[in-house]
Amino acid sequence: MSGLEGEPHFCDVRVDRLADAQVTIVGLGLMGGSLAGALREQCRRVVGVARRTETIEAALSGGLVDQATMDLEDGAVEADIVVLATPVRVILRQLATIGPLLPPGCLLMDLGSTKGDIVAAMADLPPHVQPLGGHPMCGKEKSGIKVADPALYRERTFILSPLARTSTRALALGQALVQAVGANPLFVEAQRQDYLVATVSHLPYLLACALVSTADATTSADPLVWEIVAGGYRDTSRVAGSDVTMMLDILITNRDKVMAATEVYLSQLEQLRELVASGDEDALRARLSAIRETRREMYP
Amino acid sequence: MSGLEGEPHFCDVRVDRLADAQVTIVGLGLMGGSLAGALREQCRRVVGVARRTETIEAALSGGLVDQATMDLEDGAVEADIVVLATPVRVILRQLATIGPLLPPGCLLMDLGSTKGDIVAAMADLPPHVQPLGGHPMCGKEKSGIKVADPALYRERTFILSPLARTSTRALALGQALVQAVGANPLFVEAQRQDYLVATVSHLPYLLACALVSTADATTSADPLVWEIVAGGYRDTSRVAGSDVTMMLDILITNRDKVMAATEVYLSQLEQLRELVASGDEDALRARLSAIRETRREMYP
Repeated sequence: MSGLEGEPHFCDVRVDRLADAQVTIVGLGLMGGSLAGALREQCRRVVGVARRTETIEAALSGGLVDQATMDLEDGAVEADIVVLATPVRVILRQLATIGPLLPPGCLLMDLGSTKGDIVAAMADLPPHVQPLGGHPMCGKEKSGIKVADPALYRERTFILSPLARTSTRALALGQALVQAVGANPLFVEAQRQDYLVATVSHLPYLLACALVSTADATTSADPLVWEIVAGGYRDTSRVAGSDVTMMLDILITNRDKVMAATEVYLSQLEQLRELVASGDEDALRARLSAIRETRREMYP
Repeated sequence: MSGLEGEPHFCDVRVDRLADAQVTIVGLGLMGGSLAGALREQCRRVVGVARRTETIEAALSGGLVDQATMDLEDGAVEADIVVLATPVRVILRQLATIGPLLPPGCLLMDLGSTKGDIVAAMADLPPHVQPLGGHPMCGKEKSGIKVADPALYRERTFILSPLARTSTRALALGQALVQAVGANPLFVEAQRQDYLVATVSHLPYLLACALVSTADATTSADPLVWEIVAGGYRDTSRVAGSDVTMMLDILITNRDKVMAATEVYLSQLEQLRELVASGDEDALRARLSAIRETRREMYP
């Protein structure tokens, strides 16, 4: 029927149980390597795809994968699930060409931090592929397979952004994968997730970068500063150590929303500065107390 | 001789060994309560002074002190060392009146986060008191004796700002106290410490507050935001939960230096925003990479 109306016939997934699935993970950095390690005992087979022989060797010797290859086609040809674990704009390039390499009914997921462009590109995949956008809310200030950790996803929120064409069985399989690595699936539409993470994830990165720049431009000329940096600075600057290629792709593919969040932030900081400068202690105390309460409601 | 020239005769300390000392801690919040607990086995006797009966009871039942009182004179009369562990402007008020309450040769220290005003006030203490400014580089986003932790000072830098009138023996005793709680003493002149902590400690507090305000003004209307807040937001906003009275005193007594650091920060963030907005990827990548390297040099 739907074929007669010009709507393509979308293939459904090849397997329903994660335990029966070969999962191929494309990109074996911190995120992909950690996912591979976490899935190893949860599915039939984990295959890793990486560009460099050293990464392949590290994934095999670290027991993160059953098999690893530098050839995407080779890794994808028998996959029941493929997870793209590369920077956002690499994912976009891979989405443009990977379709024909995937077997019918393959579930194609990703771990990209922005979802708008990715979900739009997924909509154009050939009908034999089942796409599902993903974004795990975890990471580290270091990158690469050497810091991969199968426990990375545990207890963390893992956003899933299904498409109109994503089948119920595909969604259930993706959800099973998320739960298998210990994460909590949360369904969020792509534009809404991009708006939320602009403030709670991408903005904190820019703030941390500006703080490191500030210390570098001022106090870092004093050798004592490195002996006195305390927890406040360490924590507030932590995400400035994130992988640059990953963050660059995020900032560029989510630019409008990140810029809007930065505008609000600059105005909030200006207001605080004015309050401190004004010497109006009652107003300053009221503002700082309200902020503290808000933070406590967030993290009771 | 010096008396003939009109210079007062400064009394030296009453004891040389911490193990022989009664240490009186004025203020039993997070900082004072933690210090008391850490010193309990390291000195002859720990006496706590607090304003509220509940605090006294908590300090005694928690085993943080040998004795506790609500009367400052009572707590100070037999003290070999007194540590003021109150907010900066309370310390300033206490310094104005505590002198006559202290026995000859008493070492008077403090834990205030800004040192300029405090060291200036200490210079005016009567000559029978040995003053020594202190600032431990540690804290928590929660306050009060309930979260006191004798391990708080371990492995942390503890700034000591001696005065011209501080004797060698007084300095050695203060240093012994710092080492007894597991901290690392670092001698820094008061103005220099205020400049450094404005950037690495007080500025991060304002930044965290502005981030919480930003989330509150934008995404917090979406209930999903609390499920997706990740480590970046949690860490970057952590110090916004600090005690408001403590932070208010810090911002006010170190206002000029904090304002100067905030100006530099605003300009650094504006520059980053311009780079993101410009779409000049090479320049943005170079800047983010340099910042990442700087952060890695700070925390290898």
